[in-house]
This record gives sequence, structure tokens and C-alpha cells, in this order.
Amino acid sequence: MKLLFIGDVVGEPGRQMVQDYLPRLKKRFQPQLTIINGENAADGKGINERIYKQFLEWGAQAVTMGNHTWDKRDIFEFIDDAKYLVRPSNLPPETPGTGIIYVKINQHEVAIINLLARTFMMPADDPFREADRLIEEARKRTNLIFIDFHGEATSEKQAFGWYVDGRVSAVVGTHTHTQTADERILPSGTAYISDAGMTGPYEAILGMEREAVIKRFLTNLPVRFEVPKTGKTQLNGVVIDLDPQTGKATSIKRILINDDHPYMD
Amino acid sequence: MKLLFIGDVVGEPGRQMVQDYLPRLKKRFQPQLTIINGENAADGKGINERIYKQFLEWGAQAVTMGNHTWDKRDIFEFIDDAKYLVRPSNLPPETPGTGIIYVKINQHEVAIINLLARTFMMPADDPFREADRLIEEARKRTNLIFIDFHGEATSEKQAFGWYVDGRVSAVVGTHTHTQTADERILPSGTAYISDAGMTGPYEAILGMEREAVIKRFLTNLPVRFEVPKTGKTQLNGVVIDLDPQTGKATSIKRILINDDHPYMD
Amino acid sequence: MKLLFIGDVVGEPGRQMVQDYLPRLKKRFQPQLTIINGENAADGKGINERIYKQFLEWGAQAVTMGNHTWDKRDIFEFIDDAKYLVRPSNLPPETPGTGIIYVKINQHEVAIINLLARTFMMPADDPFREADRLIEEARKRTNLIFIDFHGEATSEKQAFGWYVDGRVSAVVGTHTHTQTADERILPSGTAYISDAGMTGPYEAILGMEREAVIKRFLTNLPVRFEVPKTGKTQLNGVVIDLDPQTGKATSIKRILINDDHPYMD
Amino acid sequence: MKLLFIGDVVGEPGRQMVQDYLPRLKKRFQPQLTIINGENAADGKGINERIYKQFLEWGAQAVTMGNHTWDKRDIFEFIDDAKYLVRPSNLPPETPGTGIIYVKINQHEVAIINLLARTFMMPADDPFREADRLIEEARKRTNLIFIDFHGEATSEKQAFGWYVDGRVSAVVGTHTHTQTADERILPSGTAYISDAGMTGPYEAILGMEREAVIKRFLTNLPVRFEVPKTGKTQLNGVVIDLDPQTGKATSIKRILINDDHPYMD
Ligand SMILES: [Fe+2]
Ligand SMILES: [Fe+2]
Ligand SMILES: [Fe+2]
Ligand SMILES: [Fe+2]
Ligand SMILES: [Fe+2]
Ligand SMILES: [Fe+2]
Ligand SMILES: [Fe+2]
Ligand SMILES: [Fe+2]
Repeated sequence: MKLLFIGDVVGEPGRQMVQDYLPRLKKRFQPQLTIINGENAADGKGINERIYKQFLEWGAQAVTMGNHTWDKRDIFEFIDDAKYLVRPSNLPPETPGTGIIYVKINQHEVAIINLLARTFMMPADDPFREADRLIEEARKRTNLIFIDFHGEATSEKQAFGWYVDGRVSAVVGTHTHTQTADERILPSGTAYISDAGMTGPYEAILGMEREAVIKRFLTNLPVRFEVPKTGKTQLNGVVIDLDPQTGKATSIKRILINDDHPYMD
Repeated sequence: MKLLFIGDVVGEPGRQMVQDYLPRLKKRFQPQLTIINGENAADGKGINERIYKQFLEWGAQAVTMGNHTWDKRDIFEFIDDAKYLVRPSNLPPETPGTGIIYVKINQHEVAIINLLARTFMMPADDPFREADRLIEEARKRTNLIFIDFHGEATSEKQAFGWYVDGRVSAVVGTHTHTQTADERILPSGTAYISDAGMTGPYEAILGMEREAVIKRFLTNLPVRFEVPKTGKTQLNGVVIDLDPQTGKATSIKRILINDDHPYMD
Repeated sequence: MKLLFIGDVVGEPGRQMVQDYLPRLKKRFQPQLTIINGENAADGKGINERIYKQFLEWGAQAVTMGNHTWDKRDIFEFIDDAKYLVRPSNLPPETPGTGIIYVKINQHEVAIINLLARTFMMPADDPFREADRLIEEARKRTNLIFIDFHGEATSEKQAFGWYVDGRVSAVVGTHTHTQTADERILPSGTAYISDAGMTGPYEAILGMEREAVIKRFLTNLPVRFEVPKTGKTQLNGVVIDLDPQTGKATSIKRILINDDHPYMD
Repeated sequence: MKLLFIGDVVGEPGRQMVQDYLPRLKKRFQPQLTIINGENAADGKGINERIYKQFLEWGAQAVTMGNHTWDKRDIFEFIDDAKYLVRPSNLPPETPGTGIIYVKINQHEVAIINLLARTFMMPADDPFREADRLIEEARKRTNLIFIDFHGEATSEKQAFGWYVDGRVSAVVGTHTHTQTADERILPSGTAYISDAGMTGPYEAILGMEREAVIKRFLTNLPVRFEVPKTGKTQLNGVVIDLDPQTGKATSIKRILINDDHPYMD
């Protein structure tokens, strides 16, 4: 089974890249399952129903989130009905939405989990023990378990990957908006990468206009972060091969499409 | 001019990798200048004089540091005489050592700078304005300026890269111990990568024994972080091509040597 | 019922103050219950069995802790047998020790709880929901519930106080080592203070030698924090009056003994 | 010389308290100099010109700020002309406004300084060395130097107080919105308190509506923090006696006016 994951989609330029390249990526890699991190899909902050549905129409089977889940108010209107939206599971008990979904791919079920790391992030419940609980639950139904681990610190991400190695099919990090080159199959069969990277503006900082971000670092004065409307764009992601019987990963490959790495079919 | 940078060398396994592969990398890439980040070279924490001198003997022309600069007491004994050791420049005024050195390569001088980012790091003086000051100073002598920007947050690293684009030859990030795949030549000619990665244990977490790091995340109890003595190892770095006249970079290439990416001459 | 709480006891000078003044405070206020925060009692970091037992001998019925609970290795040897030691309850599941104890005072039971705040602190389980759980458990046995809420941010401490107002007898903050002047009885009957303060050196910084702390802020170089062996000392705490039937507090009074506020019987 | 300082004024309820009690406090303590921290004066976030001018009309000679200086856009319109507004001095070089002003009181000049701490705060230039610089400058004109040190961590605040002891007349902490009970005259003559506290709503959390703050801690969902329009209020501050010849402080006294400590002339 092939799984395509697309890293944090930022604003209109990011969505445009998904629309443009998802058909080509699907044609080339033939993934049965496509997952998109959509926490920045609406103007760089949060998501709305229209965009969520677009992602599904364009061919995603699941949309994962992160610390920006609640940035757009619209989320509270549609999250309870959004069967393929996965927000971090280790949020407080009464939080709307769900942190695990099951997607049926041919005769197989795949569990898709979203978790929030804690180092340099907002307080959250322990993602390690939440993973234990979710994995135990999921393994009653399937060996195919995918985790989008949304976090800042490489130490926590790698610790998490090793912690669940052999118990899940893949751990793909998100949140730093910068693809890492440490993709690998861990010894017990879990595909791992610290960060899948970001899909959106290429001449921006984490997808936001450079001038504002730099001004912020230089002055600490209030600035308005906006997604640039024009300019070069990129798509970041990974393709993972899974053995549908064992749930083990057999390969993980980074996808990087930008001006310096033009896409070639 | 070719420049080889080797990312944070961790403990004995990291030093072993440098000793083993530096000759081969030199033979292959023919760098005139080799820079090693050595902040974790002694047991994963700090550096000592013996190791610093080894790096020079093995063929480095400069050793950069980071937040772990002072972890080994020995540093205070030799830093004032270590002409090729560069600690972060934006530390308090009376700090021993220097944040900028000049290395003579053939008829060219290269300025080598180390700076500490501030997001999710300890307090430090503003690295952006310190860079302005250092660049102004350096450009009186040379167009060839290399900056090891030691930091956690990708936003700050990328903001810094764009901020100095065109004014320095290269900005190479360090500290996360995880190589990023975002190497590029910025529009005005500065080579950039968010993190060069780490040189040391490959089946560890940022170079430290997995069990301890995982135990720490699981329990928050005190643990002793140690560099594993045995096991697979890796080397991470970048090779950068510079035009010695203009100081502009013309290419940046990631180096990744590990079990999954075995070295081939 | 009268309850005496003594704020974070730091090192030998702090313990000396307890030994000197506890008899006088007991004589004066006649508390039936004395609780001491002991997280810094051994050299400013952690506690050991000898000191824990001394506190009980000197007349405390319970010793609460905080983020420094594990600083002395000895803790792991005796915590399981220390029936009157209360470490933060919202630590990971397998953590040794307990976060709630019950003390019998005359015919009444008092529940004593220790919780760790999360803002600007290490990751921990949600203290608000942990409080819900513990309060529900405790109220099956008693209305008399005391919480030592160990934290940094006044926002979180005050939010916690208001959150449990009317459900517990008292919330006494600890950790900042600085007594606050906001003691009050909240509208539903919970006694509250953001921080009870610190017991130990008076001409020091949070109980540690000034020179080292200042050097740290000035240089960020490694320094050794030590409790000064000589010099003026202080004792900080609160006395709380509880109605043993309802569990409501009727008064809270700060205790501050130092050179500027000499003790008078 | 007597100096009255009023701690962070929060919104309309805080301003009302200033208007109501400043005349009475002036009558009672006869301060020649009144300083108000106004960083939260407009709806709890920032200040505007109207409020700044009101403070002066009501009898303040200076208004200090903090991390909320820029929260209201209006600040950028009037700060350059606001001769008695003091924003943190250790902000980036091009920041509008000033971090030190001189006020003429009878025949004496008083330097009024605002500094931002760094622990658990946004990045800023080193407040210790900025203080050295400002004190050196100020002492050319006067011995009377007042510092509003705006910060979170008691360790940094106390370290700062001891660091400048004997070189300035007073260090009054602000920002935690919670008055501390550690006011004292340090050995070399500097009046010190870790936090002067907050002026505004009394049944709120740091001056903001309880429900929103508690919801935030419970859910981490976005909430709108507002200053309650009705309800009990408080005023927090300190009165400091200075020897105008030496610049040394001879006494510091906390002021706390609230439902539990009603004001009595
Ligand atoms: Fe994101
Ligand atoms: Fe994120
Ligand atoms: Fe490092
Ligand atoms: Fe580092
Ligand atoms: Fe403490
Ligand atoms: Fe503590
Ligand atoms: Fe404030
Ligand atoms: Fe503030």
C-alpha cells in the first residue's frame, strides 16, 4: 500500500500547489491513501469547511491538523461533521473533533492519528501515553497506523518515533514548515521523518511574507503576518510504502517540488 | 572556492566519523576550507583542548560552537589561545573567546562567524544587529563571510538567512541535530540551509542514548544523557561553492553519510 | 481548625528557621495541622529522608514538594515509605510517591494535595482536571482539602484558585519563593494566596547566593548555585482558619519573619 | 521626597480607581512624584493618548509601560510627543519612544526608567547592562533614579534589584499583576519590591474576566480576554521615601486598596 502525505499547506498558494500537483503525484506514485496537513490552509491560520472539502475532492482521504486547528472560527461549525478531519488527540477531554479516524482503503482499514508535541508548544496531555492508548485501540482493528506528530523539537519528535517503532506504520512530523532529510525506516519497521515540510510560498518564511517576519524579529513590534499572494511556490511531502499485512513500512521517500527542484514526471 | 561544513559532532562516535571520512570528503570535494561545529564534541557536551586540536590536525581550519560552548570547564583554560575556535558572538560583552575569526585561504581571507538564535534559546544579544555589525566589520577585509547560525526555530533561522542574503556567502544553521532539506541559494547569492545536521550516533536521539531521552519524555525524572559507545554512526554536513571575487555562493549540497545513505566516492 | 503552612524551605538556613520558629508559631497560633513545602530543603534542591523526618519531628504533619522533588537521589529510596510526603499529583502515571494524602486531625480527616502548574514549567498532566479528580475522591471522605499549587505564572495560579473555589478549603501557591500580598477568602469560601513565599536566607536571591545568580544573568556562563551558609534569614508562610464542618476557610493571614519584620509573640 | 507608584492599571475599572483614590492618596502621603504603570490602561492592552493625558491631569508626572506597550495602534501616533511616557529602554535601537525621562520636582530632577526582564518574556536587550548605561547617564544629572522593572521571574527581578542596589533610589517590579510582600530597603539604600501589583478589577484574573481565562487553561481554545465592566475593584502601589540629597530610599510601604483592605484615610 502506498501512502502520500503532503506537509502543512499554507494559504491559497499552498492549495494551488495541491490542486496542480496532486493529480500528477497520484499518477506517478499511485498512492491508495493521501493525507494532507491542513492546519494553515486558510490564510496561513486554520482551515474552513470549503477548503477541507476541496482537499477531499482533490483526492485526499484525510486532513490532519496541529496547533492552529482553532484559528478560524468556522472550524467549530463543521468539525463535528467532518469525518476525515483529524485534530490532535491529546487535547483536553471536551475538545470538539477527534484525534483518530479510520479510513477504508480497499479491504484494509488505516488508522490516522494526529498528536501534538509539548516541547516549546502549548500545554497538552502526554502525547506518548496518548499514543499508547490510541495504538492499543487501533490495533484491535488494523496494523496500518499513521501518525502525524505535530511538534517543534527534534528531540521530542525522534524520541516519539523510536518510542512507537514497530507499533505503527509511520510517524511523520509536521509544524516546523521545513522538510528534514532524516527520513528512514526505523529498525522495527516504522517509517519516520522529523518534518515533512511545507506546501506554499517558496520565497517566504514558513509560508508568510518575509518583510513582516523579519520586522518582527528586528523590532518585536506588532506586525500582521500574511501569506504572499504571488511568487514562487513549493510542495513538500513524503511517499511511504506499507506492507498491508504486517503494517510495516518498507520505504519512505521525500517529495520536494520547488524552483530549485522542479517536478519531473 | 569550496567550503566543507560538518554539523554538530557528538562525542567519540562523531569524532570517529570525522577522522574516518574527512580525508575522503577532502579528496572528493577538494574544499579549501573545512569548518566543524564542535559544541558537542566532548561526551556530547562542550569541547576540550585535545579535541579542538584534533579537529585542526585532521584538517579543519575553524571550529564553531553554540549554546553548549561552556559545558566543559576546560574551555576556559584554552579558549583565549584558540585562534580557530569561534563561539557565538552575541554573548555578553565580557565573555571569553571571539565570535568572528578570519582564516587565510590562499590569497583570500574568509570571515567565520558564529551566532546564537534567541527563540526557544537562552537570552542573548540581538543576533540580527550583531550580524549587521560583524558583516560591516568583515566586509572591510573580505567578501567571503560564513555564518554558523545556531538555533532552534526555523522561523528565526530563515528570517536570518533572508535578512543577510547578499551580504554574506553562506548561512548554515546548526543545533537541532537534524539535517534539513531546504538548502538553496537565496536570490542575492547567499547559500542557506536551516540545519546542517549532526555527526555521531545514528541510532540515537540527537546523538544521545535513546533509552534515557525517552525515559525523560515519559517520566520527567532525572536521567543521565550519554553518548552511546557503540552502534551505527552518521556524518552530516554541506559543501558550498563560493565565488572568491564576489563572495557569492554558487551551489550548496548536502552531505549525509549513514547506514541508509552509505558513502560512495 | 487552624492550619499553618510554611513556604519553600531552602537549605540549612531554612531548616534552622523552622526549628527555631515552629515552636513559637505553634504556641501562638495553635495550629492543629502544620504543612511544610520541602522541595528545596536539602541544599536548595530536593529533600532527603533525614530532613523529611526532622520536619515531622519538629511538628509538621505533611511535607509538600514541587518541581525539585527528584533533585536528590535519596528521594527514590524513601518516598514509597514516606506516608506524609506529597509530591505533585499530575506527574506521569508510574511516578513513585503520591500526590494526595489524608491526615487525621482529632476526629477530622484533611486531604493534602500537591499539584504542578504548567505555564513556564516542565510538561505535566492537566492540573485543573487532576484537581477535579482528586477533589471528587477526597470529598467522599472529607470537606477539608488543602492544595499546594506549585507554579510560576500568577495567571494560572489565580485561575486555579477561582476554578476550585468552594470545592476546597485552601489553595496556597508555592515556587516563586516570594510571598505575595494577595491572600484572601474567595467568594465561595476557599482561602487563597498566589505564593506563600520562602523560608531561608534573607540576603540571597530565592535563597541562593546572590553573586552566582547575578553572574548567571550577566554572563549566561555556568555557575554553581549554593545556599549561603551564613547571614540573615527569614520564614514565610500562612495561617488559615477552617470551619471543620463545612470545610470553608474563614481567614487567611500571612506570616513574614525577617530582619525587617522581626517576630514578636 | 515622597514617591507614589501605582501598579499596572487595567482598563476602565483601573482608571476609575486611579481617579477616585489618587486625590486621597496624594492628600494622605503628599508625594511630590506620582508614577503610574499604564501598559494595560486601555481595555487591558496598551494605552492611548486620551488615557495617557488623563493620567497626567489626574496628577501623575510619568507613565511607565511594559510588554504591552504597542498593543493599541494609537501609541505610534503620540509616543514621540509624549514627554512623560516611558517604554522599556532595552528594546531594539529604532524603537519609537524613550526608556528614560527626567522629571523636575522642585529643585530636583528624578530619572524614571522602564526596563523589560527577559526570563519567560520576549527577547530584549540585556536589561542589566542597559541599566548600567542608563544609570551612568542619569547620575551625571541626579542621584534620584527610579526603575520600573517589568518582568515575570522573581529570580531575575531580585537579581536586578541587588545588582543596582546603591546605584538607584528604587526598583519597583511590575507585570505579574500580583503585589508581592517583599518590599524592603536593600543594604545600600535601594527601595525594592518584586511587584507593585495591579489596579483594576478585584474579582478577575490579573484584571481580566475569570471565565475566559479559566476556559483558556481548561481547553486551550481561543477565547477573548476582556476587562469586566462591573464588579469590585482594587488599587495596588507603593509609597517610597527618598533622601533627595543622597538619592537613597529610607522607606517603602505597600498600598493595597480592595474589598478586603478598605481604604481608610
Ligand atoms: Fe503548520
Ligand atoms: Fe503548527
Ligand atoms: Fe549541538
Ligand atoms: Fe546547540
Ligand atoms: Fe521552591
Ligand atoms: Fe519550585
Ligand atoms: Fe501589566
Ligand atoms: Fe506586562
